[in-house]
Amino acid sequence: MTVLACDLGGTRIKIGIVQASQVLAHAVLPVDSKLGLARCLPTLKAEWLRLLSELSVPADACQGIAVAFPSLMETTTGRVVLEHGKYPDAPTLNLRQWAADEFGLPLAIENDARMALIGEWRAGSGRGVDDLVMITLGTGVGTATVIEGRPLRGCHGQAGVLGGHFSVRYAGRRCTCGNVGCAEAEASTNALSSIAAGLLGTGNPLVTVGSPLDYATVFRQAALGEQQALKLRDHSLQVWSALAVNLVHAYDPELIILGGGILGSADAIVPVIQQYVARYAITPWGRVRVVAGVLGDQAALVAAEWLLQDQLQKEHD
Amino acid sequence: MTVLACDLGGTRIKIGIVQASQVLAHAVLPVDSKLGLARCLPTLKAEWLRLLSELSVPADACQGIAVAFPSLMETTTGRVVLEHGKYPDAPTLNLRQWAADEFGLPLAIENDARMALIGEWRAGSGRGVDDLVMITLGTGVGTATVIEGRPLRGCHGQAGVLGGHFSVRYAGRRCTCGNVGCAEAEASTNALSSIAAGLLGTGNPLVTVGSPLDYATVFRQAALGEQQALKLRDHSLQVWSALAVNLVHAYDPELIILGGGILGSADAIVPVIQQYVARYAITPWGRVRVVAGVLGDQAALVAAEWLLQDQLQKEHD
Repeated sequence: MTVLACDLGGTRIKIGIVQASQVLAHAVLPVDSKLGLARCLPTLKAEWLRLLSELSVPADACQGIAVAFPSLMETTTGRVVLEHGKYPDAPTLNLRQWAADEFGLPLAIENDARMALIGEWRAGSGRGVDDLVMITLGTGVGTATVIEGRPLRGCHGQAGVLGGHFSVRYAGRRCTCGNVGCAEAEASTNALSSIAAGLLGTGNPLVTVGSPLDYATVFRQAALGEQQALKLRDHSLQVWSALAVNLVHAYDPELIILGGGILGSADAIVPVIQQYVARYAITPWGRVRVVAGVLGDQAALVAAEWLLQDQLQKEHD
Repeated sequence: MTVLACDLGGTRIKIGIVQASQVLAHAVLPVDSKLGLARCLPTLKAEWLRLLSELSVPADACQGIAVAFPSLMETTTGRVVLEHGKYPDAPTLNLRQWAADEFGLPLAIENDARMALIGEWRAGSGRGVDDLVMITLGTGVGTATVIEGRPLRGCHGQAGVLGGHFSVRYAGRRCTCGNVGCAEAEASTNALSSIAAGLLGTGNPLVTVGSPLDYATVFRQAALGEQQALKLRDHSLQVWSALAVNLVHAYDPELIILGGGILGSADAIVPVIQQYVARYAITPWGRVRVVAGVLGDQAALVAAEWLLQDQLQKEHD
């Protein structure tokens, strides 16, 4: 099965041609997602056709389109039900109709964190495990879960993917989602400068550096022993660790996969969360393993074929 | 189907004869669960036989035994894998063998919070809903969830039932489970006196009343405008509300059922949690309803027939 895949990020669209969990060809397009999705669709189409041509694969050899989207949607209809500052026109678009009109192909759409987990589960760090959770640490905090060999979706498609909005501090920081003390509000790249200002006060070297603070800087400075970076790093690790324990308590996984841009500092993150989960999670059956994902940026693309098959199967049932 | 049912609590064992989600006869035995389960088994048997005799139902008209247990067990084997101060000998007992020897009947065992939810789902506040969560507020905080018409269990049987041990304050109070900031550690009857001392300081009228503080007192005093009771009440409501939002984000339910002894003060609890969830949970599809359970103490007993049928079905598959 050959699938046209894309992963719609806030600043980049990853595009690929996927076959049997392999990304045969791919491209990355910079995008300003605030300007909407409709204006990206012609470029998407042109890029897929260009990649197919590079591979000498005719368009009519493709069986479908798979889209990873950074929010919530009704899986059955493919309708985006919530946008969160990215692609604000998405709820008004009928992507399945677009796919039918432009390619004569079925289109499946899924939350990007759930797609990344499906990719790692079928072809990455999660191979062979039927109960697992993924935490994506980046601009936001994404999660997803597979329970007993099935991605958990829930009746509105939002089970498993809102772990970043578990409150880990009930009277904590206000999140962009409206809730308080969300893991994403307490430790993510989006919130980092503001967290630093709150935790360290203004006038400290990390906060006043001019450009927005990122975790690469925090981990690098912490490794050099810089006190404020250490404070910020340890605070963030504690938030992510508490979230990891909550996810173990919520979903009973045997494996936690960590992914996302912040995992550039994996060596300083994975062992700490592993140790915290071993110490604080209730797992009388044994020990949850914590590992880094291996598919990086392409995890969601890798899931394309599985997603499309799953949807075609459901429509067939 | 007629089922011998029991719900093994910390201080009471509820016993019933159950038919088609109806408790035909029941009894309550006081117990000190710290002394173990083995010594209770002869009494359990005698009580079931007594209740059957009252109903003029012969023992061989019964199809099985269903047990609600206050901890975690392997559903497939019925082996208790974790005891938490209650019935410490339970992991060493073979209850299925006991049921076979004493009654010639199959035995199903399940977490008590999950049983209570199944009862409310089949025959109480949750009838007709396929996606729901229950929170039991009492000595501890129990939770359970049904997703797409199936109780969520996970691969070790602990998915859904550990919501009381979601950390809602990552650097909060140490819980008896070993984790920090668990909802159960931040607001439950077991922790109440200690929470009061921490929140209000010693020397306040609520804390120094001599006997252990209970929530009935807190809510009664708060209704009279007593300032410290108000503080304690509002703190607890905030913890439970944050937990409710986390459960919505975890499991995507359409309904939250509240149960447990503290719901004696339901009028002061249900509307507050309803309002908080409406305001803070991410539910673009609509609004999660929050209601009190209607089966009270008997919710877990009511689940007996469903549980037994479910297990017999699984063994048949």
